[in-house]
Amino acid sequence: MAQETRYSYETLHAFSIAVLTAAGAPDGHARAVADHLIDANLAGHDSHGAHRLMQYTDAIDQGGIDPQASPRTVSEGTTTAVLDATGVFGQVAGLAATELAIAKASAHGTAVVGVRGANHVGRAGVYALKTAEAGLVGQVFCSGRGAGIVAPWGGTTPLLSTNPIAVAVPTAGEPILVDVTTSVTAEGKVRVARYAGKELAPGQILDRDGNPSTTPDDLYNGGSMLPLGGLMGHKGYGLSVVVDLLGALLAGGTAGGKRGSGFSNNFTLWAADPDALGGREAMEELQAEYFAMLRSSNRQPGVEEILLPGEPEQRTAAARRRDGLPLDDGSVSGLDKLAARLELPSLSSQAL
Amino acid sequence: MAQETRYSYETLHAFSIAVLTAAGAPDGHARAVADHLIDANLAGHDSHGAHRLMQYTDAIDQGGIDPQASPRTVSEGTTTAVLDATGVFGQVAGLAATELAIAKASAHGTAVVGVRGANHVGRAGVYALKTAEAGLVGQVFCSGRGAGIVAPWGGTTPLLSTNPIAVAVPTAGEPILVDVTTSVTAEGKVRVARYAGKELAPGQILDRDGNPSTTPDDLYNGGSMLPLGGLMGHKGYGLSVVVDLLGALLAGGTAGGKRGSGFSNNFTLWAADPDALGGREAMEELQAEYFAMLRSSNRQPGVEEILLPGEPEQRTAAARRRDGLPLDDGSVSGLDKLAARLELPSLSSQAL
Repeated sequence: MAQETRYSYETLHAFSIAVLTAAGAPDGHARAVADHLIDANLAGHDSHGAHRLMQYTDAIDQGGIDPQASPRTVSEGTTTAVLDATGVFGQVAGLAATELAIAKASAHGTAVVGVRGANHVGRAGVYALKTAEAGLVGQVFCSGRGAGIVAPWGGTTPLLSTNPIAVAVPTAGEPILVDVTTSVTAEGKVRVARYAGKELAPGQILDRDGNPSTTPDDLYNGGSMLPLGGLMGHKGYGLSVVVDLLGALLAGGTAGGKRGSGFSNNFTLWAADPDALGGREAMEELQAEYFAMLRSSNRQPGVEEILLPGEPEQRTAAARRRDGLPLDDGSVSGLDKLAARLELPSLSSQAL
Repeated sequence: MAQETRYSYETLHAFSIAVLTAAGAPDGHARAVADHLIDANLAGHDSHGAHRLMQYTDAIDQGGIDPQASPRTVSEGTTTAVLDATGVFGQVAGLAATELAIAKASAHGTAVVGVRGANHVGRAGVYALKTAEAGLVGQVFCSGRGAGIVAPWGGTTPLLSTNPIAVAVPTAGEPILVDVTTSVTAEGKVRVARYAGKELAPGQILDRDGNPSTTPDDLYNGGSMLPLGGLMGHKGYGLSVVVDLLGALLAGGTAGGKRGSGFSNNFTLWAADPDALGGREAMEELQAEYFAMLRSSNRQPGVEEILLPGEPEQRTAAARRRDGLPLDDGSVSGLDKLAARLELPSLSSQAL
């Protein structure tokens, strides 16, 4: 197991802004990306956290990200819009779409806004959550192009990305966030098992010939991951195709394809105002009863408490706010090298 | 295996209209319900087909369905509305919501319409498909109240219904329809295994104490069905809660609860016009490329062809149009008794 050190949220956030600014990002862009990455670390989704700074600054050096660009409106109606992400950070494009959807749904009841051809937008749930924090329900279909890992149902060629669906709903307390891949699991979990030399639980991957496997290496040797539902995953396959059709093609974007064929994210965000439907107050009262009902369920052996979707991440965030955000030594070393290159203070010198 | 006889679509449809009319339904209501039920038989979803006529006429006799009622508008904005189903057939309420959503989204780009407190609405996919047949994308969150079969994650009390999500997307050919329960499977499939005395594949149900089981009886003896994803089903749990939050509570409806605590369906339909986003023509061109890519996948051993979501149902429908719609003898006998009671010609006398 890699060693790790801990950092305060504020330290990691300020470090990220310094890196992005030194790499050429205007203040608002740097802040949008830093918020996204360090919130991911906070919620325990380290795969989408600070270490992405290395990927993004590399992309700036290679021309894949233009840190000063801004998304461009392709088409716009009263309750709809499509943005071209241009070459900016995916998070900046995603945030622009989210703010537009919030404004339109607040004014007209509901709205759908799409983003085309974006660089890596990070966690889909962030855009849904931002919508819920503005008091609206938000749903994101986040399609990945050129990131195939799941095969079409019955097939063996990894042509579909993990294609997540994220939904967030405002409540009287913290919003409920559900952010799920339409693949059986995240690729990072197979990678962790591979490094640890462990077998997988059955029902997650196929080898290159399409036979069920529990050996992580098989995924990386031409195999594929199963859709949500595993060996009964025709439903997950259907949902993955829905993410491509609604998240990309509906807004004029492209979807699918093997890794290495040119990555982009395309997504649509669907927002609706509870006050234009059953009313916010009525909804919150109904939610309170509903959540109490779920929590009242009898429990499986060894389960201490019934949690609502999103509560595990909320608890991780509370603990990390208190104890610091852990980063593995490999990430810290890479970020230190990046800081040195940009003539910034090292990250490791600021550990808790 | 029960014996079965076959009927033409037209025979079953006309029989259904005759039954519903004799039971007091006005012409439009009878036609809406008959379309829904016999289209379900046609697509192979017999659990939602003609045999429901017995359930619905019983409900009319007992006052649960008022065959002459009409849905009532509770609130309405430019792009949103909530209907109270009143006591009418669920399909009539669902269809009214669908037509309203189509009209609003066609005029304004997108719309969300909810239905509260409906009698059994049948297949969620029908409303999405109707939206796609009007040229719009449609998404339905169909929440079941008082139909608990899935326990909250970590729990053992069946408080969540199978809570399907249905999405339909117009294409240059037939619409793509994805209509999936957020439970691991449909209750009917466990019932079939029970009658056949077969064990289930692992990962579908828990016994009353929360232990994994493959014995169908355990579901009916206080057990629960796992959410989509099975023993890794926290994602399916999240999606089931999303269906209740967006399909019911957002529109002021109620959700969840054990069987026998008073059934109703609540749903919201989300519609969007491709011409208000990336444009229909561009979408159809992108779809043609995308579908060709999916079909090009290498195949698993024993798989002859990669299908798009919804294609299995389309093929069943084509075969049944040609060969007739099969009904099991139990259903036919029940429908014959119903016909006799309503002084209508028997169904069995009209078999192919």
